[in-house]
Amino acid sequence: MEIIGHLINGKYSEQAERTQDVFNPATGTVAKKVAIASRETVEDAITAAQAAYPEWRNTPPLKRARIMFNYKALLEKHADKICELIGAEHGKICHDAAGELQRGIENVEYACGAPELLKGEYSKNVGPNIDSWSEFQPLGVVAGITPFNFPAMVPLWMFPMAIVCGNTFVLKPSERDPSTALFIAELLHEAGLPAGVFNVVNGDKVAVDTLLEDKRVKAVSFVGSTPIAEYIYSKASANGKRCQALGGAKNHAIVMPDADMDNVVSQLLGAAFGSSGERCMALSVAVAVGKAAGDALVNKMAAAMKPLKVGECSDKTNDFGPVITKEHKDKVVGFIDSAESQGATVVVDGRHPQVAGYEKGFFVGATLIDGVTKEMDSYQQEIFGPVLQVVRVDTMEEAMTLINDHEYGNGTCIFTRDGEAARYFSDHIEVGMVGINVPLPVPVAYHSFGGWKRSLFGDLHAYGPDAVRFYTKRKTITQRWPSAGVREGKSFSFPS
Amino acid sequence: MEIIGHLINGKYSEQAERTQDVFNPATGTVAKKVAIASRETVEDAITAAQAAYPEWRNTPPLKRARIMFNYKALLEKHADKICELIGAEHGKICHDAAGELQRGIENVEYACGAPELLKGEYSKNVGPNIDSWSEFQPLGVVAGITPFNFPAMVPLWMFPMAIVCGNTFVLKPSERDPSTALFIAELLHEAGLPAGVFNVVNGDKVAVDTLLEDKRVKAVSFVGSTPIAEYIYSKASANGKRCQALGGAKNHAIVMPDADMDNVVSQLLGAAFGSSGERCMALSVAVAVGKAAGDALVNKMAAAMKPLKVGECSDKTNDFGPVITKEHKDKVVGFIDSAESQGATVVVDGRHPQVAGYEKGFFVGATLIDGVTKEMDSYQQEIFGPVLQVVRVDTMEEAMTLINDHEYGNGTCIFTRDGEAARYFSDHIEVGMVGINVPLPVPVAYHSFGGWKRSLFGDLHAYGPDAVRFYTKRKTITQRWPSAGVREGKSFSFPS
Amino acid sequence: MEIIGHLINGKYSEQAERTQDVFNPATGTVAKKVAIASRETVEDAITAAQAAYPEWRNTPPLKRARIMFNYKALLEKHADKICELIGAEHGKICHDAAGELQRGIENVEYACGAPELLKGEYSKNVGPNIDSWSEFQPLGVVAGITPFNFPAMVPLWMFPMAIVCGNTFVLKPSERDPSTALFIAELLHEAGLPAGVFNVVNGDKVAVDTLLEDKRVKAVSFVGSTPIAEYIYSKASANGKRCQALGGAKNHAIVMPDADMDNVVSQLLGAAFGSSGERCMALSVAVAVGKAAGDALVNKMAAAMKPLKVGECSDKTNDFGPVITKEHKDKVVGFIDSAESQGATVVVDGRHPQVAGYEKGFFVGATLIDGVTKEMDSYQQEIFGPVLQVVRVDTMEEAMTLINDHEYGNGTCIFTRDGEAARYFSDHIEVGMVGINVPLPVPVAYHSFGGWKRSLFGDLHAYGPDAVRFYTKRKTITQRWPSAGVREGKSFSFPS
Amino acid sequence: MEIIGHLINGKYSEQAERTQDVFNPATGTVAKKVAIASRETVEDAITAAQAAYPEWRNTPPLKRARIMFNYKALLEKHADKICELIGAEHGKICHDAAGELQRGIENVEYACGAPELLKGEYSKNVGPNIDSWSEFQPLGVVAGITPFNFPAMVPLWMFPMAIVCGNTFVLKPSERDPSTALFIAELLHEAGLPAGVFNVVNGDKVAVDTLLEDKRVKAVSFVGSTPIAEYIYSKASANGKRCQALGGAKNHAIVMPDADMDNVVSQLLGAAFGSSGERCMALSVAVAVGKAAGDALVNKMAAAMKPLKVGECSDKTNDFGPVITKEHKDKVVGFIDSAESQGATVVVDGRHPQVAGYEKGFFVGATLIDGVTKEMDSYQQEIFGPVLQVVRVDTMEEAMTLINDHEYGNGTCIFTRDGEAARYFSDHIEVGMVGINVPLPVPVAYHSFGGWKRSLFGDLHAYGPDAVRFYTKRKTITQRWPSAGVREGKSFSFPS
Repeated sequence: MEIIGHLINGKYSEQAERTQDVFNPATGTVAKKVAIASRETVEDAITAAQAAYPEWRNTPPLKRARIMFNYKALLEKHADKICELIGAEHGKICHDAAGELQRGIENVEYACGAPELLKGEYSKNVGPNIDSWSEFQPLGVVAGITPFNFPAMVPLWMFPMAIVCGNTFVLKPSERDPSTALFIAELLHEAGLPAGVFNVVNGDKVAVDTLLEDKRVKAVSFVGSTPIAEYIYSKASANGKRCQALGGAKNHAIVMPDADMDNVVSQLLGAAFGSSGERCMALSVAVAVGKAAGDALVNKMAAAMKPLKVGECSDKTNDFGPVITKEHKDKVVGFIDSAESQGATVVVDGRHPQVAGYEKGFFVGATLIDGVTKEMDSYQQEIFGPVLQVVRVDTMEEAMTLINDHEYGNGTCIFTRDGEAARYFSDHIEVGMVGINVPLPVPVAYHSFGGWKRSLFGDLHAYGPDAVRFYTKRKTITQRWPSAGVREGKSFSFPS
Repeated sequence: MEIIGHLINGKYSEQAERTQDVFNPATGTVAKKVAIASRETVEDAITAAQAAYPEWRNTPPLKRARIMFNYKALLEKHADKICELIGAEHGKICHDAAGELQRGIENVEYACGAPELLKGEYSKNVGPNIDSWSEFQPLGVVAGITPFNFPAMVPLWMFPMAIVCGNTFVLKPSERDPSTALFIAELLHEAGLPAGVFNVVNGDKVAVDTLLEDKRVKAVSFVGSTPIAEYIYSKASANGKRCQALGGAKNHAIVMPDADMDNVVSQLLGAAFGSSGERCMALSVAVAVGKAAGDALVNKMAAAMKPLKVGECSDKTNDFGPVITKEHKDKVVGFIDSAESQGATVVVDGRHPQVAGYEKGFFVGATLIDGVTKEMDSYQQEIFGPVLQVVRVDTMEEAMTLINDHEYGNGTCIFTRDGEAARYFSDHIEVGMVGINVPLPVPVAYHSFGGWKRSLFGDLHAYGPDAVRFYTKRKTITQRWPSAGVREGKSFSFPS
Repeated sequence: MEIIGHLINGKYSEQAERTQDVFNPATGTVAKKVAIASRETVEDAITAAQAAYPEWRNTPPLKRARIMFNYKALLEKHADKICELIGAEHGKICHDAAGELQRGIENVEYACGAPELLKGEYSKNVGPNIDSWSEFQPLGVVAGITPFNFPAMVPLWMFPMAIVCGNTFVLKPSERDPSTALFIAELLHEAGLPAGVFNVVNGDKVAVDTLLEDKRVKAVSFVGSTPIAEYIYSKASANGKRCQALGGAKNHAIVMPDADMDNVVSQLLGAAFGSSGERCMALSVAVAVGKAAGDALVNKMAAAMKPLKVGECSDKTNDFGPVITKEHKDKVVGFIDSAESQGATVVVDGRHPQVAGYEKGFFVGATLIDGVTKEMDSYQQEIFGPVLQVVRVDTMEEAMTLINDHEYGNGTCIFTRDGEAARYFSDHIEVGMVGINVPLPVPVAYHSFGGWKRSLFGDLHAYGPDAVRFYTKRKTITQRWPSAGVREGKSFSFPS
Repeated sequence: MEIIGHLINGKYSEQAERTQDVFNPATGTVAKKVAIASRETVEDAITAAQAAYPEWRNTPPLKRARIMFNYKALLEKHADKICELIGAEHGKICHDAAGELQRGIENVEYACGAPELLKGEYSKNVGPNIDSWSEFQPLGVVAGITPFNFPAMVPLWMFPMAIVCGNTFVLKPSERDPSTALFIAELLHEAGLPAGVFNVVNGDKVAVDTLLEDKRVKAVSFVGSTPIAEYIYSKASANGKRCQALGGAKNHAIVMPDADMDNVVSQLLGAAFGSSGERCMALSVAVAVGKAAGDALVNKMAAAMKPLKVGECSDKTNDFGPVITKEHKDKVVGFIDSAESQGATVVVDGRHPQVAGYEKGFFVGATLIDGVTKEMDSYQQEIFGPVLQVVRVDTMEEAMTLINDHEYGNGTCIFTRDGEAARYFSDHIEVGMVGINVPLPVPVAYHSFGGWKRSLFGDLHAYGPDAVRFYTKRKTITQRWPSAGVREGKSFSFPS
């Protein structure tokens, strides 16, 4: 069986003392093995990155950026292959994988602007004939630890910007679907990146802890669940590293009485069920304001969900695929069960989907639950499955309180056509990414991605302008030249 | 005896279960007592700040900035009083206190620019008829913990910018010289600040830990020694707070053979001995490149140090004053002793200064030590006293290696007139603040202050542009309006 | 009779071969005389500015900014005096003058941020060991030519920013109400400005043409009518000067059917009649969409206009004062007559206002005209008086076409609560300053002021960020140091 | 004989009433004919651009930028073809053409960053619940008029940025070497640009005047000689258009006594003679400070010039090629003659170069003239040929005065290793682009290009950040939503 290895110092290596199964979630069977890096293997990657750093740091930003121009072209050229790799291990439908990849490529495009983005601030005459300026210098070796749900996009949030800023990088992708990261790493070398600047190690907690403990690693970017994010942030910080750790989410949409309900339903379909809801920006709670809006929403939503089709990744007619593992399927179904038992109504039930030919796949069908309340387990926790829960409230203020009281603050949305409601909402909601009639308000690559509250630990958001600041440190130089010397025709004099 | 209390919710309170002595370091006697806040007192301050937050946050930035305009005028008007308070408890000479205050006021001037500094980024048409923008919203209640050596300036690095960004603030100044912070806090209220927006509590570790543990405090800024900075950063981070913690320093100047030695000596006098060397930017190590430069430096320096005069703060003819405590004096003297016993030469010896009328004051005279090596304790640790150590090397590369290998990376300087040497130095030195012929390269208020390595824990530097980012969180809004409705003359339709 | 003179090189001078009458528009009588500068007098002012330039240019921006901090305080201290001067010569009511002054002071506040605003862009390693940065250097002597309608504010749009950027300045204020400019110029000297940096000359076309022709003047800022603006821009450009020339306006508000009509009426009262409509941002045309909106607007507006009171400046109960001259009053009345004769309905007629005690004052009462069409003279030209014209259309598209077809493109507004309508309007309207439910969308001082089409000639808008760019020229430096020399321990070698 | 036509609305057309000869300057023979556009043809191009504008303006910046990504790849793919076209009509050697193209491509790379570069400024709460932001909207149809000396690079300075900002474009390239512009225009269409967005018309003054007079053209960018630049700027400005017009140059290098003379000579070879000196950044005057420096410079320069080889473009061993026309050759030779007759010494004489096989080519050899003074015609005017003139002075101040007194202020350079001299020079020299040991300080594409004095007419420099501002106009929106309405649960009410 194929073993998925590591890419260290420009060389691919399958060497592994330990391996772990990689499943095809649509068939439910083990398809490959992935090498689990030992501490030594991770240290080898760090050593390679450390060795490549001085020369890479001194490479002009424009030259570094040109590798990203090449890289964009290669990612586009090999898009189908990348989507296949994503589909095979993650299970998402090819059109969804293509969307993920496109969002990832946008970060490469942004990284192409490095020469502009790295400009420092220059002040003439901070005092008489004294100048001062700030430069943004790279950190050194930095690391990324990424989740299974976006095997291409989330790594692409991190390493292109880190690398174009002059850092060298060690990526530990998810061990659930590791092939994509390795393939896109190979393409980056094909684009002209010197060996050692970008390294990929597969692994588990051993690899993670090695990255968090090694003094040569200067910064860690993480995306995953909140408990792990908190662990990573706390440990990295205690070890003197810069860290940004993105965690879980519970994204609510407020549906106002004046919303165009057909539009709402059409938007929510993709936002709630796309990629089986395994997105940190998935819209998993709809808060309807007023009985009329609630009834209309549930009725139209239920009707609209009927044609949704779940299945295998290569069939473009499918709307979404399986969830990532058997365990995760059981967890999602368990949340539906608990909502039901705690008093909610399962309006559309996806617990037993029929997928001909893929009976052992980890499928959950699109599910709609009405009458959810804030006390329910399914409301309080992140389900990360194709489940949309409807909460009903009487006023917008009530809806906003619900959101502001929740542990997470990643994304949110309001459906309305009223300017005042939209403005009040966006100003006062305690959430980092806000949509006005946009159910998945993922910032474009030239803005930055980040939740509030327990959805993100760290000062700076992911990708975009904040990433430039995260992957560089400020150096401020103050300069005065002591006397006119040469200019006034005096000869040079050594102090003697 | 006067008890120095707290300022909470706009009201001054002397209530204290515990107090601690505040010395006049020039006389060596206890002059006042300072109240030591209990956990409850600190929580009261946080509660006041929390209560004031919603209204303050909604106050337009321009109105917040106007209070800073008033504040600048009041600080200037009361400058003499502030300098007296600094002198009485810290001991620094009045002209030095005036310099400190001026540097503090510059941060207030910068804060007056809040409306410009808080501008977000706006993108039209991130998709068809979809716009997206990022706002920088305040965090809520934030805290500052400040050191004894700059009782006015370091608090002024923090709270004006934090407050003008819309946050409310709890300051815990040093318990060694707490009066200044209270007085400038009163002036800020006189300038028009609403009660509760800025609070001052005096205290010790109990106060610090309360600030680090209370969930309502969203960010902590700290300046002090590295071990405490590390503790603060690690604990604040583990508690989900944003933190920037500035620690110790060991600032080297490289003296190149082509430097104008008279200028070097004149610059080093102030940089090494000003404020008794109790500055995190004090220049405490001179690295001479080549024997000729080293000899000239030591000879000229020794001669220039002769007229230096140490004494009480109100006498303007004094160059610098006492160190902060008896314990600290003993520590400084101990470092001189250890250097001597480890083989260095004490060229000018300040261990037994004569200060007529102030025999019990905590004075140490200006001290010059030649032949220091990197193995010596006095080299490895921060002395924080009026001691300049000379290390001699043969090449600039050797000098730079010395600096890059040191634990700290706060400030550094090169004396040369050679453009290439200056550029190579500023590019490759692992230090956050770099001077070219500027021995104290403290960034001006419109740049940011921060060391590298173990001199600063955190992503963002203090004051200046980085402070704007530190004291705000990014919110990204993505907006689409769903259909033409009103514009096309359709009537409004409720979903029904 | 008092003669209003010039302020040149820090000295006030009344010397004048020619003078011109200055009226009190409320009484209709000549109150003072103003000196009309000869070509030589203007050249003296330019010479003074030229002489002051080198030292002022080299003054650190922070020091220049501190004079602006002082200046703000002085303007606030002398606000009543300034408002009296405005009232006496322009006629606007004291509360309106206070508003004007406040808007002017905001530009001084913005200028206080010069150290931040003047930051250049710094790029490390544009090639191997080559750095490049851009500085924004001052231009030299620059001039401002300002209109009668804002004798304090418009000059304050210009000279604080020009001066804080390092330029020296010659101002030619309106000869109708010249005292204010002279007084605020004196205050700037009191704030610490060196003599010669800011000069005021009163005059007519001779002064204007001297400023446009003198090679030492590097830039001209102008605000006035479009024909003069076009003349100024064309002549200044042909003489190689940088120029921004702001001209006339015809500002429309679209009133949508969903607008809150009481709010609309309340907003329009001030926007149409404030300062007698003598504002380039006055809202002089209301475009009602739909018959219902039009009828409601006219009825409610007519009712709301009844209590409006016209009169002398010092009486705070007055809503607005006289227009500037007898000739201008006749022109305004002429436009009302022409509208009537061309078929419009004068709903509220201000042609014959009764102002007890001021029977000879140049008063026009608030006037409302319904049924205006685009063919009418009163629609096509700028009236610059207290006249609101209502145009009725059937659709929003029709309303926008009307605006986009008009010669001017200064300000505009839409009243609606619909997000989509507002967004479509702001995107597609060919006007530089757009209000959403804001009838006078004058940008705040930290944005920039400028119309489109024939309302502004030039690339850059007035005040705010654009003014920084207008009053500076870019210099780009590219730097490489040729060899390691000193750093590598080589001795210095003269070419020999 | 081949006729070079126009590219209008995506279609190539050779139609021409008039044509003009296009020479191969290496052979001195007519190689092609170029169509000379009539007023109608130019108007057709403007009409096409106008028609394409609305849809292009509404295309999201990211999509516009992606066409530039494609375009960069196509320019690189067809680099050899482009260089051949340049060589055949302009005569520059292939390696020089490749350098030109590379510099042009860098502007395409910069244009790829449009989504970042077009970000506006967003201010929350400019008043209570009032927000304001500035957008940078495109102008409409804009035009470029470009010179013969950089047939690829100068057009690429203009149209990629103009187009990516949302404008549509009409280019009139030089009629001397028009093929390159047409070919790179075709590639832009191949990259995905819609028809009509970019149009190329060949022509003479008729075409230029049509572009300057047509009201639909909103802005003109020009590069050429100063008299024409002045004409263009003055006429465009008088017609209400935005304009930037770049003119002539006389770029001086100061050679300081401490300069590394071998490096100076090596740098000057390329800077003075590359592209036959037909560059507006060519370094045509060396100012030696001190006799020793002057003698060394002339001696070493003369020796270094010996191996220089002039010849045909395709032979890579040639250093530079012919000048553009027979007339221009005569003019260059005339300047050498005049210098000689006015007292200077022709040290190396290129008036009669031997180029075997190309006896009728328009060749001038590398020429070095010593003892030039500021009174000479050859000093005062731009030669635009391979001629380096040496002026000798005693002090740096004298050298700087020479430069500051010259009519032009495009580029300049100082050779020194002294930090103070370099800083004083760059601060006080009245030139827009300054090199420190960099003889051709052409700003990189992410800074902006522009001279001072009579080298540039306009406020904003070419390409880089200034180009973004030049090709957009600011629109400032101020927004308030009038009442809570929907949010507070009130129903919608039409005014009725």
